[in-house]
Amino acid sequence: MTNAMGLRERRRIETRRLILAAAYTLFRRRGYDGTSVDEILAQARISKGSLYHHFPSKESIFAAIVAERGERCSEGMARAADPRATLHENVHSIVRASWDAMRADDDWPRLQMEFSLLASREAWAREAQAASYEQCRKLIAGFIEAGQRAGAVRRGIDPAAAAQLFMALSDGLLVQWQTDPDALDPDELIPPMADMVSRYLAATPPTDEDRRPANTVAGLDKP
Amino acid sequence: MTNAMGLRERRRIETRRLILAAAYTLFRRRGYDGTSVDEILAQARISKGSLYHHFPSKESIFAAIVAERGERCSEGMARAADPRATLHENVHSIVRASWDAMRADDDWPRLQMEFSLLASREAWAREAQAASYEQCRKLIAGFIEAGQRAGAVRRGIDPAAAAQLFMALSDGLLVQWQTDPDALDPDELIPPMADMVSRYLAATPPTDEDRRPANTVAGLDKP
Repeated sequence: MTNAMGLRERRRIETRRLILAAAYTLFRRRGYDGTSVDEILAQARISKGSLYHHFPSKESIFAAIVAERGERCSEGMARAADPRATLHENVHSIVRASWDAMRADDDWPRLQMEFSLLASREAWAREAQAASYEQCRKLIAGFIEAGQRAGAVRRGIDPAAAAQLFMALSDGLLVQWQTDPDALDPDELIPPMADMVSRYLAATPPTDEDRRPANTVAGLDKP
Repeated sequence: MTNAMGLRERRRIETRRLILAAAYTLFRRRGYDGTSVDEILAQARISKGSLYHHFPSKESIFAAIVAERGERCSEGMARAADPRATLHENVHSIVRASWDAMRADDDWPRLQMEFSLLASREAWAREAQAASYEQCRKLIAGFIEAGQRAGAVRRGIDPAAAAQLFMALSDGLLVQWQTDPDALDPDELIPPMADMVSRYLAATPPTDEDRRPANTVAGLDKP
């Protein structure tokens, strides 16, 4: 009985994965608005009944993709944070992780912009986007609160507002990068972006010391 | 002869203004993609010949609107800068001016997002957006260079990169505001955004003194 349930559950997860992969392939190629449910069925090679069993609508596929991307980005940032590193190093790693998540494939930034535009127009898309933003905001606010407890981040900072500013920098650079690509190289902007964020957060103004690994600052490194 | 030319020039400007106003009204209501040239003709009450005399295509109307909006935003920021104010006050005023330009009407933020998405897809739209970004970037980089000459802004900062970060904050907050409006109040985020930017730029770390008007700091205020 347990085995039968296990198999059914594995199949469910696999079908869901197939649908999302097929939808994502088509959204990348033709945009969300340019893709029909029938095309997703054909791409995933599944029946309409099977699709609707998993997703009641194209909107719910959109929501699942937004949620999955948000989780992937959050996981990348959480992995990047290192309790032994300095504030500046952590900010730098987290900035890089958020950029890497955005650049996971060439078409994602454009698709994210289309999703944002949809969210500005449609309540169902706004809900999906808001949930993803909230997850990311909570994660970053959590980093900042931990930094405040450790004395590395200023007490006067509102963690939620700081998280919004961090996310705005990422989103805004994405928009500039997509709309004016010749003027902006993400890799060149990671250091100044990390510098801006860590100067904003830092309990004490940064010095060159802050750029060294934590164990160097603490004098714990071996000769 | 001069009078006749003057009249013709005034008419040309007035017709151009009519076309842009009609197109903007329709773009706000139906989006750029949802608006046809024929609808713009009907709204502006002009002939096709007259429209094409001014704008060879719908694309060129888009480009003119982007350019005009960019100029308006730059003018607002230039007006906000005050050589007698502190760095923090100037940053605060410029942040507010850039938000005010974005909020000039309720539909502009969404339209700007549609224009950005178009620019991510189409070379002609990318050119229009890039020109507008460049104008804004040069203006802000100019402020920063002036601040460096005056000793208020750190020498180590690349003015062009700092301008891109400033614009990214604005663009990114606009996206968050449009896609997650319940979580974000622009007026509440103006002070932390100004704080982040001025801490990044400041040659000396900010103190409470920096929040007072320049003449107070300089001890020139009357009792």
